[in-house]
Amino acid sequence: MSQPLISFSSRLRRTPFSRRVEAAGAKSYNIYNHTILATAYHSIEADYAHLKSAVQVWDVTCQKQVEIIGPDAQRLVQMTTPRDLAKMEDDQCYYIPMVDAQGAMLNDPVLNKLAEDRYWVSLADSDMLYYFKGLANGFGLEVKVFEPDVSPLAVQGPKADELIRRVFGQEIVDTRFFRHKPIIFQGQEMIIARSGWSLQGGFEIYLVGFENGEALWDTLFEAGADLDVHAGCPNLIERIESGLLSYGNDITLDHTPFEVGLGKYCNMDTATGCLGHGALLGKQNPSRQIRPVEIDGDPLSVAPQLWPLKNQSGESAGYISSAVWSPDFHTNVAIGMVNKDDWEPGTRLVVDTPEGTREARVRDEFWN
Amino acid sequence: MSQPLISFSSRLRRTPFSRRVEAAGAKSYNIYNHTILATAYHSIEADYAHLKSAVQVWDVTCQKQVEIIGPDAQRLVQMTTPRDLAKMEDDQCYYIPMVDAQGAMLNDPVLNKLAEDRYWVSLADSDMLYYFKGLANGFGLEVKVFEPDVSPLAVQGPKADELIRRVFGQEIVDTRFFRHKPIIFQGQEMIIARSGWSLQGGFEIYLVGFENGEALWDTLFEAGADLDVHAGCPNLIERIESGLLSYGNDITLDHTPFEVGLGKYCNMDTATGCLGHGALLGKQNPSRQIRPVEIDGDPLSVAPQLWPLKNQSGESAGYISSAVWSPDFHTNVAIGMVNKDDWEPGTRLVVDTPEGTREARVRDEFWN
Repeated sequence: MSQPLISFSSRLRRTPFSRRVEAAGAKSYNIYNHTILATAYHSIEADYAHLKSAVQVWDVTCQKQVEIIGPDAQRLVQMTTPRDLAKMEDDQCYYIPMVDAQGAMLNDPVLNKLAEDRYWVSLADSDMLYYFKGLANGFGLEVKVFEPDVSPLAVQGPKADELIRRVFGQEIVDTRFFRHKPIIFQGQEMIIARSGWSLQGGFEIYLVGFENGEALWDTLFEAGADLDVHAGCPNLIERIESGLLSYGNDITLDHTPFEVGLGKYCNMDTATGCLGHGALLGKQNPSRQIRPVEIDGDPLSVAPQLWPLKNQSGESAGYISSAVWSPDFHTNVAIGMVNKDDWEPGTRLVVDTPEGTREARVRDEFWN
Repeated sequence: MSQPLISFSSRLRRTPFSRRVEAAGAKSYNIYNHTILATAYHSIEADYAHLKSAVQVWDVTCQKQVEIIGPDAQRLVQMTTPRDLAKMEDDQCYYIPMVDAQGAMLNDPVLNKLAEDRYWVSLADSDMLYYFKGLANGFGLEVKVFEPDVSPLAVQGPKADELIRRVFGQEIVDTRFFRHKPIIFQGQEMIIARSGWSLQGGFEIYLVGFENGEALWDTLFEAGADLDVHAGCPNLIERIESGLLSYGNDITLDHTPFEVGLGKYCNMDTATGCLGHGALLGKQNPSRQIRPVEIDGDPLSVAPQLWPLKNQSGESAGYISSAVWSPDFHTNVAIGMVNKDDWEPGTRLVVDTPEGTREARVRDEFWN
């Protein structure tokens, strides 16, 4: 099927950077948290090669923030996650599974703690704002919950440190992984975190104030001209190679944190304030789990659907949720939800793709 | 700006009808409730002319359902809406504003009551499932809340009654406006309501069971061949002419029901179970409100952004949230949020569009 057009409306929100994204030649988009997200500039293969060798600026405004502020802020956030927040420091970023009372995955955001009573939840694609509102009302919590005017802009790639040093100085570059620092830049407050949805290194700038987006974008491009800075976006190939999961693709409401490999973020001994804690206690040994899967043969087209997996006996072994050809690894790299009997590294499986049946193999590790 | 491409992934959910929609030649899409929605087949102008003269079948699976079942079902739904549900009958559909505790609009769904303790909420574009989950947990309600396997298919247009009669019989055609009837068809349960997001007449079929979509689609097209049945979709021109509001475009979290003209669905004397009731009591006389607005001059391009309105003194008078050229009315039809001082029918305003400044006029009624 040929790739159809997208129709925009104000329901699909533009960002502080949208005019720059358009001028940089974004070719395709999708929608994430009701917000437009570029998905390719040149091609996903060309964008990928550039991301791994230089530095890119990504408009990831679609990682919308929920701000939670007030005396009950920590209690409210803890209700939604089995990761223990008790020792989180004011400059930390935590990647957290968020679950409902049944232990089902609602989102997998990065939680930024700004102060003892103040958090930004940097969201994957679901309206967690509504869940927080419901809980806050129902439990009568002393807390304010809202979407602040904050737009993340990611700087990713091996030359990201150099670009950030030139624009924001060495002190920001010295930020440790998954920590953030507040700064005033161009008269505008923002926080900058060492984080981002690639394993190529880099930062996420949480810009406060929609009207300041273009000045920030232009400053980064002027400072990085000789670093070959490009406009970019989360890259399907790199993120599968890196095992970065996508909520809605690899993770859904049908999954527990243990099934999607986030058990290491479940502190079952201490995070008893999580509403799903009781349900999750009985789900720590899942019968299926996320695995890296290599699919043989020629480059596969990108999948808009789940592809069934079978084992050597012809029984269902799970499914593939994301797959793409990797130019660097010369194979189709994939993320699968694989049944326990079939998830040992090296297990041979068969996958039904729209381009026919293919041999596949469970790997022990992702590629990057 | 030329219209860019959309990139699909399994995060952007396909529907039981997606293969038929593609085969029928859908040219463009957007995303609604994480689900793909066709936005044009021939052109929005050609689709519009056909919708007003014949009959169309619309894949509106994106109107996702939340099922609420259990002894506290009515109490939970009432918490979210100022429309009194006490007298709602088991075969009724209510169009309802849904609000948070501050009286802010969360969604504007059609609520289908199936039984004393069972509802389907047919959603506009936001994750109300999450709000219901939060409330149900927080208030400890005896209720189950989930997304059932239900996919609405709309049959709209002046010949919709005839098509429905041929396929489902006269008893279904006799269904009154905003009432529904359950039937078993092709071995599958469904409910059929006299409703739909146009004013051209018609029905919405709530199909249970993803796997039954193509048989239903094909049956409708075979039975309607001589009625010139086409694949269609919600039409931007028809819905603005008809004053059908779009959540995310014309209605957002920044609005109360009174501001968006839904005061007639707010039973402030009786719907005291609504969590926003207290807040709404003080908001019954808004200082701005939705109005139909006619914009002079040549056909305007469709707006991906809000357009500022000014009055004759050059002061802000609000904004336009949706606008398009109407071939039938030979003018640009628009939906505006207009300040009280400027909202009288006949008031002349000025609107800033990307194609320059235009004269505009507040109308007393929508066009259809």
